[in-house]
Parts: sequence; structure tokens; C-alpha cells
Amino acid sequence: MSITDPVRDAAHMAASALPSSAPIGVFDSGLGGFTVLDALVRSLPHERFIFLGDSARCPYGPREADEVRSFVLEICRFLAGFGCKMIVIACNTATAAGLSAAQRAFDIPVVGVVVPGARAAVQMTRTRRVGVIATAGTVRQGAYEDAIAHLDAGIHVTQKATPDLVRIAESRFSGVAFDEASEREYARIAREYLEPLKEQDIDTLVLGCTHYPLICDLVSDVMGPGVALVSSAEETAREVRSILKRRGDLAQESAGARVQVMVTGDDVEKFRLTAQGVLGMDVPVERVDLGSRGGEEMR
Amino acid sequence: MSITDPVRDAAHMAASALPSSAPIGVFDSGLGGFTVLDALVRSLPHERFIFLGDSARCPYGPREADEVRSFVLEICRFLAGFGCKMIVIACNTATAAGLSAAQRAFDIPVVGVVVPGARAAVQMTRTRRVGVIATAGTVRQGAYEDAIAHLDAGIHVTQKATPDLVRIAESRFSGVAFDEASEREYARIAREYLEPLKEQDIDTLVLGCTHYPLICDLVSDVMGPGVALVSSAEETAREVRSILKRRGDLAQESAGARVQVMVTGDDVEKFRLTAQGVLGMDVPVERVDLGSRGGEEMR
Repeated sequence: MSITDPVRDAAHMAASALPSSAPIGVFDSGLGGFTVLDALVRSLPHERFIFLGDSARCPYGPREADEVRSFVLEICRFLAGFGCKMIVIACNTATAAGLSAAQRAFDIPVVGVVVPGARAAVQMTRTRRVGVIATAGTVRQGAYEDAIAHLDAGIHVTQKATPDLVRIAESRFSGVAFDEASEREYARIAREYLEPLKEQDIDTLVLGCTHYPLICDLVSDVMGPGVALVSSAEETAREVRSILKRRGDLAQESAGARVQVMVTGDDVEKFRLTAQGVLGMDVPVERVDLGSRGGEEMR
Repeated sequence: MSITDPVRDAAHMAASALPSSAPIGVFDSGLGGFTVLDALVRSLPHERFIFLGDSARCPYGPREADEVRSFVLEICRFLAGFGCKMIVIACNTATAAGLSAAQRAFDIPVVGVVVPGARAAVQMTRTRRVGVIATAGTVRQGAYEDAIAHLDAGIHVTQKATPDLVRIAESRFSGVAFDEASEREYARIAREYLEPLKEQDIDTLVLGCTHYPLICDLVSDVMGPGVALVSSAEETAREVRSILKRRGDLAQESAGARVQVMVTGDDVEKFRLTAQGVLGMDVPVERVDLGSRGGEEMR
């Protein structure tokens, strides 16, 4: 795709006199972003949301940052085409790779999941020792370390890549029936990952992957009641609410469908079931082609 | 002073099991910090505050950053000696020079005025063009540019050093009677400074000096109703409240004197009158020697 001109066109188009009833765009490569969408839906009762799951190119984790950045810009352009008043990057990898570029390219606010989670951890910690669990990619980029240091230079951060927890969260997303042997195995994996963090005397742990709210029981069982868990999903919803409130942009009443889900891959049914499980409601899911500017029916 | 060991001693002493009834330390080189103190007092009705004005070494603006940093650490150590549960650096110059060092040295939260003001501007702007007026020192250090870019890389920032506005605010602090000729001259100075910012099409202007809430009438007369003014004093109070609330550290009821002011210079009477004017209450003001760990009477 050609990044600069078309993106700026869409951005300016989108920024021109958007009403507070305009939808909020939310996206992720896969299912993890549903935890952010769920927090948004619960904390913003009158807003409409368009969720895009880029499942055709999922996962983003193993890809080069440049490539992920181009995906982020492409999806933001697509969502801006629906007249979104704000875009939420509901994925840590995509935030780390593409947030700044998207903020430069668009005239509507683009919010990522990293700074809100980092801010909450900075506000909460008393021991000034914070842990972060995330995918290998997010840990490698050090996005949380940077964000925390920028807010409070005196906080000691210990990061830990915990990729198998994503796998466990995925299996829970898919609604597999409870199975005692698997749960025992999950608990063993969580212990193996988290015991070293426990030894670091942290009092606050950031769930630095949008999948992790689904496994916070496993995490808190290991960490114990003395360690507060920060959900970047909840914190991002809080930040979005704060921005809309401050700008006087909160939707005043619900208008039409509250949530619409689009996917780029073949897995429409999987997204429909997961949306139902996580959000507790039936939502329409359709397959889309990012090249099109379709979906005008929602405006 | 020897920076590392004594500071960490005081910090660890202060951090051990501080009750929510512990005071909040606030400091500035001079009178500007009173606007922050005022916002804190109004938004936190049950908290106690110890305000330190380092008037013996005021102003900090022309000094080297290293020197200001050593002052910041010395004052934080002094305030930590009173068992403060949090310290607020109510001065832009001191925040830019010493916040990170103080956050590294102390185990209680140390909050500056720059990030809260930057955050508010990022949340508010629709044109994504923000102005900052501040002292020459704060502009030179680019503290707001950095803080805004970190939160939103796409926002265009125009800074302007407006030192004469400090002088005007000072004259208002001192409670000089209204004088039409002076007010006309003040309006002229404000126009001269602010017209170039107006041409930048900003929609949000950060008052990046703690003196400036006293001259916001002059500023808004020039900028007009289309430009929102961000008071770093109000935003810092909001941030402090958010931190205390999140940590469960809000004082539950008022206990004793709400505000105690200390100054390092001879100008006790000037501080007493200014405190009375800005806070609208009589507060005790005493001269102190930073080398002492006195003031235990307030604990």
C-alpha cells in the first residue's frame, strides 16, 4: 500500500466534524482484542464499536515491526473510512510497532494499550517493583519498560515473556469444556513462568497481552493476594472514557447496533462464537476486504 | 550535600508504613507553587499539606540543571523527613531538572507538573496543534514537547517563552491594587507574546508555568474562546487525586492544620500574605533551615 497520501486523505475525511454518535474503531490481529472491546462496551454504555480482527494475517508477533506498522496504518485507514471518532489498537504488538506512525498519520485520536497499563502500574505500586508478562515480541521491544520509565524513572521493572499463556487463553477463548487434567497442566505452566517474578518482590503485575485477562485466575493463584494485577484492557477502556469525557465526545444515547465485528480471514464463525462468549451478546460478524471502503451501512 | 546515601535513608524511613493521614509535601522555589497548592487543597478536602518555598535560592530558572537537581533532592529529603506520603514538585523548572532523580532516590511517589499538563492537552486537542507558554528555561529543555510526543507522536507543539508574564503574575500575587494603566500594558505584552501562537491555529494552550493561572484572563482575552487553556496546577491536582485514590491512600478525615508553609528565605510575611490571597485562608508560615529535620510537631 502507499502509506502517506491515501492515509492522510482518509484521516482528514474522518476528522471533519465527526458527531459524538460516531463509532469507535477497535482492532487486533486476533481474538485478544475482544478483552479490550469487552472492557470498552462495559464502561461506555452508549458508544458504538466497529471491531476489526485481522485474522488473515494473525499472529503479528513473529512479523517484522515495519510490516506490522504497515498493517496498522492500513487498518486505521479502513476504520477511519467508517467515520470513526477514535481508534483503539487493542494489541500490544501492534501498539509497540505502529502507534506512533498512526498518531502521525490520522487526525482522530489513536490510543494504544501500553501507556494506559503502564500508568496504572506506576500509580499502584508501593514497593516500586513492577512485573510485566507479555509475548516475546512485546518484551523484546521493551514498550512497557519505556512507558513506565517515562512516567516514573524510579520504578524497577521485571519483564517476562510468557507465550504459553497465550495458548492457554486461546483455548479458553474457544470455549473448550473445563478439563481437570488441562487445568492442572495450565497451573504448572503458570507457576513455572511466574515463580521467578514472585522472587523479584513485585507488588504489581501488568497483564501486557490482551489475551491475559482470560487467565488472570491462573496468574493470581501463583502471585497471591499481595500482588495487584493490571489489566491493560480495563486501563485502556478507562483512558478512552477519559479522553471522550474531556473532549465532550461521549455518545449521548445508543443508536442502532452497538457492536459490529469484521474479520479479514475465513474464521467468521470462530469470531462470532468468541464475541458471544466474551461480550455475552450476539453480534454480527462479517468477512471484509481491507482494500474496500465498505460497511457504510453502519454510519 | 552528599546525594546518594542520606537521601535513600530518608526515603526508606519515609516509605515504611506511612498512614493515609500522612501529609503531602509540595514545593517550589517561590510563590508560583501556591497555584498548585490551591488546586490540591480544593480537590483533596481531607489532606494535609506541607509547602516549602525555597525563596532563599529563588529563582531556579537561571541556574544550571545540575544545581537545581541537587536542590530538588535536598528538599525532597527534608519533606520526606516529615513522613510525607507523596511529594509534588510544583515548579516546571524543578520538574524538568530533578523529577527523574527524585523518583529514583525516594520510595514515595514524586509527581511533577509537566506530564499531567501534557496529558490533558493530548486528550483535549482536536486540531492536534497545541501551544505551550512557559519560562525560557522550561522551553529550552523542551519538557512539554517530549512529554506530549511520548503520549501522542502526531501532535504539533509550538512553544513560546513568556517571561514577562511571570513578572505580571508576581505583581498580582503581591496583591497590588488594580491599576488601569498597568492592566493596559499587561494586555499589550500578552498580545505581543500570544499573537504568533494564535497564527499557529492551536486549539489548546498549556499554561506551562505555575505562575500563569494568575494571568489566564490576559491569555484568554488574546486567544479567544476557541482555544482551551490547560492549567498544569489543576491537572497536577487531578493526577495526585487519581494516584491516592488508586492506592487507597486518600486521607479519610481532616486531622489538625490543613496547610503549613515553610520558607528558606527572609520573606515569611510575603509568603503569609500570598498564601492568604491565593488559598483564601490564614496559614502558619515559618522560616526553616533545610539542614534540620525539624517540624516533627506536624506528624
